[in-house]
Amino acid sequence: MSNDEPEFRSVGIAGLGLIGGSIALAVRERWPAVRILGVDRPSVMAHASGAVDRAVGQVADLLETDLVILAAPVRPNVELLAQLATHAGSRTLITDVGGTKRDIVQQAVSLGLTSRFIGGHPIGGAERGGFGFARPDLFVGKPWILTPVDGHDPASLDRLKTFARGLGAVPVELDADAHDHLMAFVSHLPQLAASALMDVVGSAAGSEGLRLAGRGLVDTTRLASSPASVWRDICLTNPDEISRALDALIARLTELRSDIQGGQALEATFGRAERARAELMKKGE
Amino acid sequence: MSNDEPEFRSVGIAGLGLIGGSIALAVRERWPAVRILGVDRPSVMAHASGAVDRAVGQVADLLETDLVILAAPVRPNVELLAQLATHAGSRTLITDVGGTKRDIVQQAVSLGLTSRFIGGHPIGGAERGGFGFARPDLFVGKPWILTPVDGHDPASLDRLKTFARGLGAVPVELDADAHDHLMAFVSHLPQLAASALMDVVGSAAGSEGLRLAGRGLVDTTRLASSPASVWRDICLTNPDEISRALDALIARLTELRSDIQGGQALEATFGRAERARAELMKKGE
Repeated sequence: MSNDEPEFRSVGIAGLGLIGGSIALAVRERWPAVRILGVDRPSVMAHASGAVDRAVGQVADLLETDLVILAAPVRPNVELLAQLATHAGSRTLITDVGGTKRDIVQQAVSLGLTSRFIGGHPIGGAERGGFGFARPDLFVGKPWILTPVDGHDPASLDRLKTFARGLGAVPVELDADAHDHLMAFVSHLPQLAASALMDVVGSAAGSEGLRLAGRGLVDTTRLASSPASVWRDICLTNPDEISRALDALIARLTELRSDIQGGQALEATFGRAERARAELMKKGE
Repeated sequence: MSNDEPEFRSVGIAGLGLIGGSIALAVRERWPAVRILGVDRPSVMAHASGAVDRAVGQVADLLETDLVILAAPVRPNVELLAQLATHAGSRTLITDVGGTKRDIVQQAVSLGLTSRFIGGHPIGGAERGGFGFARPDLFVGKPWILTPVDGHDPASLDRLKTFARGLGAVPVELDADAHDHLMAFVSHLPQLAASALMDVVGSAAGSEGLRLAGRGLVDTTRLASSPASVWRDICLTNPDEISRALDALIARLTELRSDIQGGQALEATFGRAERARAELMKKGE
């Protein structure tokens, strides 16, 4: 296949927020000939209509395309998949972009959709959600996780990988369980820590006190503007793994508190943190 | 006084790390005629000697200048102040730049130095410490907290404010107790949260897992490369306030865990965090 020939001639996107909107913009830029259908609330489509060729009324209308991408929050995606499953005649490939994978993969298995649905999770975060922050380069150089299950169609998996690569991402296969465990630590825990920290600091410092904060607080709480609607669904569909991650952070903070009260040095935690941070920054190399 | 006439004709800096080094660079840039003396370990001076006019052998040698700035970590600063106090004849004004203020202010009171010492804390953080990250514009637009006590010399306080303004900072007066309480939340807690988070996430995810992290983790853990030596002293000189701040964060994380396990929405915490974040970002306006 030529590098410029699109893997899918038409794409339907349910949810034109940060991720769905960025996919629309990226597809348009990468393959201008691809027809893009989209569906979202009228208030969203009022801003996002320029990113699609046609705004449709319901998610089932997207089944006329070659690839349907569910890009609403996680729980609506799970429901939308059930709606699509009632259209038994369709052969359209379906994926999603949700931040947790066990629930929707389980839904696909329950609905007998394993040959037509492959879960996905492009890692492309931004400070804020919504179409207003969508960008065509959101996925460039970022992992795009795919979570195929037994009974998936290998050809469809290959097509999705090619699609992700076309948008600049690096496709990575992962089991849904492993995904949800890993993301609880590398994605969900940082979000909850940032929101809890900003809440606690804001309450204690007040507006005047916040004016004396340095860059450290600004960096550490950047995620605190993330939309609650997205994170509510992530937390509600990954509660066991997130609870374990929170337990680990609470335990470490409790140890630090005890070390500080006992006049102990903090070198152990700081040393491990500094090495992990160096490891984290390597990925950009 | 003309805007270009320096408030101090000579400045002595003990400790040429990020803050001390940035002060040297900023003074040189702002008032090229000011004579700058510096003292630090030979390994540091090997890199920082270009930022000073003369490297001296001990902190007492700095007393020939008009202003001595203690810019080592907090506990060495407290000891250095005692060394300077033995030179009873000197009238040199002394300040410091430490991240906690109660210990050194108490030391100044004990030593009878209240008329010659005024505590300071310029808010100018960077991702990493050390002279290699020093910059002349580190303080531009940032608060420079000063913590005068009863018995201070108002003229000296004014001179220090003028000095801070000359380096681009915004001088702010604060009581040492209020400083240490506030900084426990807006500075010390974010640092400890970032280090604890990076430690926990790194341990759980491993190198391979960290490669699947997004920008959120990168932002939230930026402080995790901070030097342990600086933070050990801050924690050891502000343990009561930091423990209370840690308690507040641990309590909020525990509540979030309980909400998530109970299937509760997170809107309350996320809503408060989003508003506090908006308030925090206003300060840059």
